[in-house]
Amino acid sequence: MDFAAEFKHRIARVEAGLERLVPPVATRPSRLHAAMRYSLLGGGKRLRPVLTLTAAELCGARGDAALPAAVALECVHTYSLIHDDLPCMDNDDLRRGRPTAHKQFDEATALLAGDALLTEAFVILAENYAAQPSLSHALIRELANAASSQRLIGGQMEDLLAEHKANATSDELDFIHLNKTAAMIEAALVMGGIVGLAARPPAVASMEMRPGAVALPPEVLALRTIGRHLGLAFQITDDVLDATADTATLGKTAGKDARAGKTTFVSLHGLDASRRLAREHTDAALAAVAALPGDKIFLTTLIETMAGRAS
Amino acid sequence: MDFAAEFKHRIARVEAGLERLVPPVATRPSRLHAAMRYSLLGGGKRLRPVLTLTAAELCGARGDAALPAAVALECVHTYSLIHDDLPCMDNDDLRRGRPTAHKQFDEATALLAGDALLTEAFVILAENYAAQPSLSHALIRELANAASSQRLIGGQMEDLLAEHKANATSDELDFIHLNKTAAMIEAALVMGGIVGLAARPPAVASMEMRPGAVALPPEVLALRTIGRHLGLAFQITDDVLDATADTATLGKTAGKDARAGKTTFVSLHGLDASRRLAREHTDAALAAVAALPGDKIFLTTLIETMAGRAS
Repeated sequence: MDFAAEFKHRIARVEAGLERLVPPVATRPSRLHAAMRYSLLGGGKRLRPVLTLTAAELCGARGDAALPAAVALECVHTYSLIHDDLPCMDNDDLRRGRPTAHKQFDEATALLAGDALLTEAFVILAENYAAQPSLSHALIRELANAASSQRLIGGQMEDLLAEHKANATSDELDFIHLNKTAAMIEAALVMGGIVGLAARPPAVASMEMRPGAVALPPEVLALRTIGRHLGLAFQITDDVLDATADTATLGKTAGKDARAGKTTFVSLHGLDASRRLAREHTDAALAAVAALPGDKIFLTTLIETMAGRAS
Repeated sequence: MDFAAEFKHRIARVEAGLERLVPPVATRPSRLHAAMRYSLLGGGKRLRPVLTLTAAELCGARGDAALPAAVALECVHTYSLIHDDLPCMDNDDLRRGRPTAHKQFDEATALLAGDALLTEAFVILAENYAAQPSLSHALIRELANAASSQRLIGGQMEDLLAEHKANATSDELDFIHLNKTAAMIEAALVMGGIVGLAARPPAVASMEMRPGAVALPPEVLALRTIGRHLGLAFQITDDVLDATADTATLGKTAGKDARAGKTTFVSLHGLDASRRLAREHTDAALAAVAALPGDKIFLTTLIETMAGRAS
């Protein structure tokens, strides 16, 4: 397998999906849709939606069955970045190497574009899986919980509170990373798995997706474990990069955490221990991959790539 | 029927639902949940969720079947108010007679509380109707579309753009009101109707909720028509009130539109014509009520009350 070529191919599928499933600029109000598309289509590594497509294929999904799920996930991720960059939050001018949404447009437009992308994620899941309401429901349930006040937004909130304290504790940092970063990576993999499950014989799929099903399919459990560890490895690596790389390489302002006096894995545990911790979580993610069916070489290489950015 | 007593009773049911279905303050992060609940539970007329309960009962729903739908709707309404009040938007200090969320907490917390309430709406619909995935899907589809970039947020965006122009056109004003105000009132009634439909014999309900069903049940069509006209009547009345009432009566800053040089129904058509237009839309809403089954006296009185605030 040529990993780079296959990765590029999957990214291209995601880009085509984003282009197709989000309303065009001509849709009224044009400025709002222009702002949504500016942030959504302005580059980005597309790691989360590629994870969705990859998990779906390993679990038996065919063709582009998981593409709307992948696009919905990227909409939520992009909304969280737009709002995170706003002056009242991180007040960042640069994102993915370009002006942030409120710099390119204005604050109110950026606020509304973020709101609209979050909402659009649920529109996309409700409309594109309308012929399979149980599938649509299962995907929405997973995404809404991952993006909720107890996970993604909760992580953002504690991150914000930690910035205003002299020292965040290790427990606070774990909460932030588990929720701000790992929740959406978990959801990316699990949503792929859910699309894959829906491709099974109807009786099996409906039993497995039944609310409160006692025995969740082992693939979904494995995907959640992979996502959790991969998310933590990814975030620790991000902290390491912020402390060691330059702005041009990152495509966003580097060294920001240290200047802000922010507690990170690096400030709390040091560079060496942070790299070791990232490695441990990566190994745990790779170990959980074993429970998945099919040819897992693309997924394992992707995990290594995502978690190994700092090495 | 004692309308006032019945209205009070339905509001109490909504308040109890909000209290029960949204995470308590003790849930981590506590400050985020405190801010969500501050805005959500701080009074408010609860017109939209009462419309949901009322439509559901007329269409055959029993007990509190529509309560989670009503609560989800109020979560979206409250999020839109929090974000609308932010400094980069309307920059309002007062809402429902109390300090706005960003005044009571801070801007970042208000931003995140709004994001969290929007997300919570989908969590509530996905979790509380999990035993009926088709019903959950139909409700989420209706709410997501009503709150989307082409409706609620689109209306907010055009409202913002209109403020920066010397004169908004009648077409722009119609777009703003149809989407910023009427979309959520429409959704309130239609979601109630959907919960009612789901209480019918399974075969009928599943056929009616089938995606792309050719013949939508006449009740849902009627509820959408009622919502559209009631929404317009309600917004025109709001413009009339802003021009004629005082801050204490409104519970929010009065005369703001005129001072901001904002185009409203009143500035465009005058007070008399605005009152006449509100009356016409109210009559159209009442005419559509005829297509609904059951005892409609509470609904017709509620419509008169909502649309008649300025008379």
